[in-house]
Amino acid sequence: MGAGNQQERLDAKWIVGFVDGEGCFHIGINRQPEMILGWQVLPEFRVVQHRKDTQILTRLQSYFDCGTVGVNNGDRMEFRVRGIRNLTAIVEFFRQNHLRTKKLDDFERFARVIEIIKNGHHLTESGLVEVATLALKMNRRRNSSASKILRDYAPDAN
Amino acid sequence: MGAGNQQERLDAKWIVGFVDGEGCFHIGINRQPEMILGWQVLPEFRVVQHRKDTQILTRLQSYFDCGTVGVNNGDRMEFRVRGIRNLTAIVEFFRQNHLRTKKLDDFERFARVIEIIKNGHHLTESGLVEVATLALKMNRRRNSSASKILRDYAPDAN
Repeated sequence: MGAGNQQERLDAKWIVGFVDGEGCFHIGINRQPEMILGWQVLPEFRVVQHRKDTQILTRLQSYFDCGTVGVNNGDRMEFRVRGIRNLTAIVEFFRQNHLRTKKLDDFERFARVIEIIKNGHHLTESGLVEVATLALKMNRRRNSSASKILRDYAPDAN
Repeated sequence: MGAGNQQERLDAKWIVGFVDGEGCFHIGINRQPEMILGWQVLPEFRVVQHRKDTQILTRLQSYFDCGTVGVNNGDRMEFRVRGIRNLTAIVEFFRQNHLRTKKLDDFERFARVIEIIKNGHHLTESGLVEVATLALKMNRRRNSSASKILRDYAPDAN
């Protein structure tokens, strides 16, 4: 009773279903004094699984031909993709293979942030405000960095 | 930014990926004095989602043409399939469309339990012991009914 056919390439539609369940499109925003506005925008795509299913994470890594597989927390492992070139490929994949749950909304916001970064627009106040606004809509947990950016640069937004 | 194409029939491979992430094959065992051995075996397949994604549960229900969609707990909704005829169809689906994670192991045990019930073998001590043994391997949470059955009918098993 193994997890059969482990070497077989994953199917794109299977991946979409799995990511609809387990995937996460995340926009990290960190204090970074060396950056022009003092903030670094760090988008990442990740899938977390119990370590017993590490094989599925390495198969995702093989499929997308990018990202890393490492420890997330305790018994949990993660497949994580960072970097604009890699994330552009991830966005392209989910443009061609549509998410079916409300995770699609997070994906659309994520894709917009990638676009903003590609244009260098996140280095301007208005671009950073847009990123922060999108990040606040995406992440379930409070995003204190995004909130601070809006207070600083868009105090009238609320 | 809706969850687009909501009326389109789900793809089998998407369903497998989604169930690899979010599905649950469960063997309930309940005290039931009217049953021959005093225990009722109640297998069920379920998928739980936040209520914002109820649409995906009703689409699963449409796809499989069985089961119910209702409240699981608080904000969470569930698509649930019970009954041997319905579950036989579910088993057949996952025989044709292979799970890729370790959930496959739970599925194989689940499929075996369905087979045992179809044969009426769960009404015998040896059949019930096999069901209890499989259930103990499947469910993450302690299954006190299964443990009691093994203590009563297969005390040498440990």
